[in-house]
Amino acid sequence: MRCVHHAGYLLGQHKCRVRHDRREGRRPDRRGVSVETPLTDALVEQLARYRPERLPAGAWDVARQCVLDWCAVTLRGAVEPAARLLREECLPGRRNDGGPCCVAGTGARTDAVTAALLNGTASHVLDYDDVSIRMLGHPTVVVWSAVFAQAQALGCSGEQALAAFIAGYEAAAMIGVLLGPSHYEAGFHATATIGALAAAAAGALLMDLPPERMRCALGLAGAQAAGLKSMFGTMAKPFQVGRAAAAGVLAARLAQRGYSADAAVFDDPQGFVAVLGRSQLPPSAWPWCPEPGAEIPRNLFKYHALCLLTHSTVEATRSALAAHGVRAQDVAHVDVHVTPRHLGVCNIQDPHTGLESKFSLRHAVALALAGAPTGNPDFFTDGNALRPDLVALRAKVRVVGDIPGPETSVELVTHAGGRFSAAHDAEAPATDLAAQGRRIAEKFHAVVDPLLGQAAAHELEGAVAALRSAPDLSALAGILGKEKAA
Amino acid sequence: MRCVHHAGYLLGQHKCRVRHDRREGRRPDRRGVSVETPLTDALVEQLARYRPERLPAGAWDVARQCVLDWCAVTLRGAVEPAARLLREECLPGRRNDGGPCCVAGTGARTDAVTAALLNGTASHVLDYDDVSIRMLGHPTVVVWSAVFAQAQALGCSGEQALAAFIAGYEAAAMIGVLLGPSHYEAGFHATATIGALAAAAAGALLMDLPPERMRCALGLAGAQAAGLKSMFGTMAKPFQVGRAAAAGVLAARLAQRGYSADAAVFDDPQGFVAVLGRSQLPPSAWPWCPEPGAEIPRNLFKYHALCLLTHSTVEATRSALAAHGVRAQDVAHVDVHVTPRHLGVCNIQDPHTGLESKFSLRHAVALALAGAPTGNPDFFTDGNALRPDLVALRAKVRVVGDIPGPETSVELVTHAGGRFSAAHDAEAPATDLAAQGRRIAEKFHAVVDPLLGQAAAHELEGAVAALRSAPDLSALAGILGKEKAA
Repeated sequence: MRCVHHAGYLLGQHKCRVRHDRREGRRPDRRGVSVETPLTDALVEQLARYRPERLPAGAWDVARQCVLDWCAVTLRGAVEPAARLLREECLPGRRNDGGPCCVAGTGARTDAVTAALLNGTASHVLDYDDVSIRMLGHPTVVVWSAVFAQAQALGCSGEQALAAFIAGYEAAAMIGVLLGPSHYEAGFHATATIGALAAAAAGALLMDLPPERMRCALGLAGAQAAGLKSMFGTMAKPFQVGRAAAAGVLAARLAQRGYSADAAVFDDPQGFVAVLGRSQLPPSAWPWCPEPGAEIPRNLFKYHALCLLTHSTVEATRSALAAHGVRAQDVAHVDVHVTPRHLGVCNIQDPHTGLESKFSLRHAVALALAGAPTGNPDFFTDGNALRPDLVALRAKVRVVGDIPGPETSVELVTHAGGRFSAAHDAEAPATDLAAQGRRIAEKFHAVVDPLLGQAAAHELEGAVAALRSAPDLSALAGILGKEKAA
Repeated sequence: MRCVHHAGYLLGQHKCRVRHDRREGRRPDRRGVSVETPLTDALVEQLARYRPERLPAGAWDVARQCVLDWCAVTLRGAVEPAARLLREECLPGRRNDGGPCCVAGTGARTDAVTAALLNGTASHVLDYDDVSIRMLGHPTVVVWSAVFAQAQALGCSGEQALAAFIAGYEAAAMIGVLLGPSHYEAGFHATATIGALAAAAAGALLMDLPPERMRCALGLAGAQAAGLKSMFGTMAKPFQVGRAAAAGVLAARLAQRGYSADAAVFDDPQGFVAVLGRSQLPPSAWPWCPEPGAEIPRNLFKYHALCLLTHSTVEATRSALAAHGVRAQDVAHVDVHVTPRHLGVCNIQDPHTGLESKFSLRHAVALALAGAPTGNPDFFTDGNALRPDLVALRAKVRVVGDIPGPETSVELVTHAGGRFSAAHDAEAPATDLAAQGRRIAEKFHAVVDPLLGQAAAHELEGAVAALRSAPDLSALAGILGKEKAA
């Protein structure tokens, strides 16, 4: 069905004479024939399947890992100017305005929408948060920022919050698959666009909205879905993420109040998928709905405060050193083999700034050889980009784009002529969730201990571990909301 | 310049290794060569030309007409559920929170961003507000809603506010021309998307931001630019407009604080124009920059609470009756000739609801024949859609899509066999601004007198008339902010 377009068409409020029958999720077409809205139906039905009793243990484990990782990057991000300036704008002179929601890293409490905006922005400032390859984005900073705020405002239990988070996480993955890579390739910032809908889905589940209201929540999120990749490298990138979290919260809350919206935002010929996604929609049902809880274990965490595409190189270099007992000073040169697509992203030959040093495969090898604290975001200063020992080490590195996959292979050649190889794929999900948990805890303490002190950091870790049995989110919020950030 | 795309690319915060030199409005490309950003440069330079002393008298006149019309549709819209529900969400229990900005139709005062959201939404609820054909949207509801809030927060004079409004109005037209019709045709709600940038431009002018900060304000608005045509016919349509006004205010305020963003949002290969607009950009400078104040007199006002595409028919029918002294009861049948493009928009044959009756050319003729109060938004009830005399009159009407232009021609055939024709083009700007002013005043009083009473309505009209010499906006805000809406 194609609408008639004309300059004057915008001049009325009617939508091509097509009105939705919002209760049935169907609409009459121009001739009054009822047509189906299968995509929106499918997602709404899928979301109804996210009941706590249906979710597997691994989903709960990874959800808690996501929350712990979020606590670390949000508390640390809250100190940065992009987070501070936004707080100064949004909370002028009312650091404790009596709202129900904590602003992480500060003593401020505010309403759910503002808290989601501020926490969502802070959590993505470092770009050190987790990743969903299916979403082509960062799910937790949007979805948990929204759920955390909403759950406090509603007085939800920890289990309700975690279950809604798992649903929102997997909704983001599902919407990512539906849109396909062309959405991101066209220049949309998928974390922000898809994130708004995923956050709305999670928020609507927390409110236990009926299907017809869930549709409107998704529509109201689609009405707000924005974000451009041209903002990458500026404060507007995390701002877009915070906006998406806030949009999701506002969408769910307005939908609960009876606000109307396009109730078939995935199907409408001028809706979210048609306008922001690829033009060719799948013909009928949603292309992919996982078993609830089956997708979140595929989440990718970042352990190095570097571009993720350099992570395989860091890990492979470390493996080659450790497995073969090679010392850094014995290394004469290093060959790095990556997929050619990485060369345009993170192959800066001689980085001069802290930011550039995060996008240099050669520098990544130098960091691994030198045993540098790659998990510490404070390490990536301009000074360390030019530290003489690191510059000398990276001079030994040659990068070749000659392998197909995401797995990166590193070969160390010693002065004695020995050749020692290792490979790693940082885009492969962890198979050992316990080991993953230990690495996240290590990152957490490296980031949070200097901010809160060891005792409070330990307390926060415990609150996350106990989240599923917590009656509400006040314990978590109490520690996150201790006055700290400047 | 095309970026390398890859699933993992999103995993770092770097933008294809292209960094903007934000002070110069240039950027190095991948090989470090400085490339120009002509479109963003051109708009920023153009905006600097909007100084009050340069603006012609007609621009001030029409700007005041826009503000008066805005007052009417906003006060009346504020009573509707879409406005009320949003207020209940955004101003819970703090109707007078001490903010500097008036929420029209209520006694509430709040911050500038929230006021822009609420007033921007209320002003578009009726879809009875003015139109820019170049923007393919509704300029005043976005731009004045933003300027009104910002100017109160900043303590600007009436002249400063009106000049910024004129600049924002014309920025909307310029961005509309830059994007071309494909933006709207693709399904974006141009009022909301373009409107966010236009509102940011006006807000940045009110703050007298330097060019580099103006660029960031435009970037931060682009970061938030959203809106889908699939929301038409729902509460989310005006909500999108309010969001755009608020986005513009927030963008300007954050830019003033030093928040960074894509500083070349019109030029960036993943920026606003490339992602939301047509893919083929003009090669260099902005395609069209009017003399400041030359565009706003082309504004189109709505005098009938009907789809604008029916307005020509109403006017032509009235003209044919009046010019030839024909009485409605003498009319045997009516032939309406419109451009075929209108048929898909507003040619409902037998409307059954108030909303449908706004999109029926046959009903529009019946209303004109019966002398119905088409300027009264309360008239368009379901009952009046089925009023027997109107149903009988519309049975006499035949609509044919057989003329090329926007001008509509109507021929009345009487029982005596007389044929009386008239034509009208509601998309042609008024040439007599004084006559236009009288019609707007008539609409204003029809809408506002029942809400505020005649005395206060007259006072409000006077405040708008005196706006250019007002030291600030408090007189206007004082009358608009009298407690009224439910």
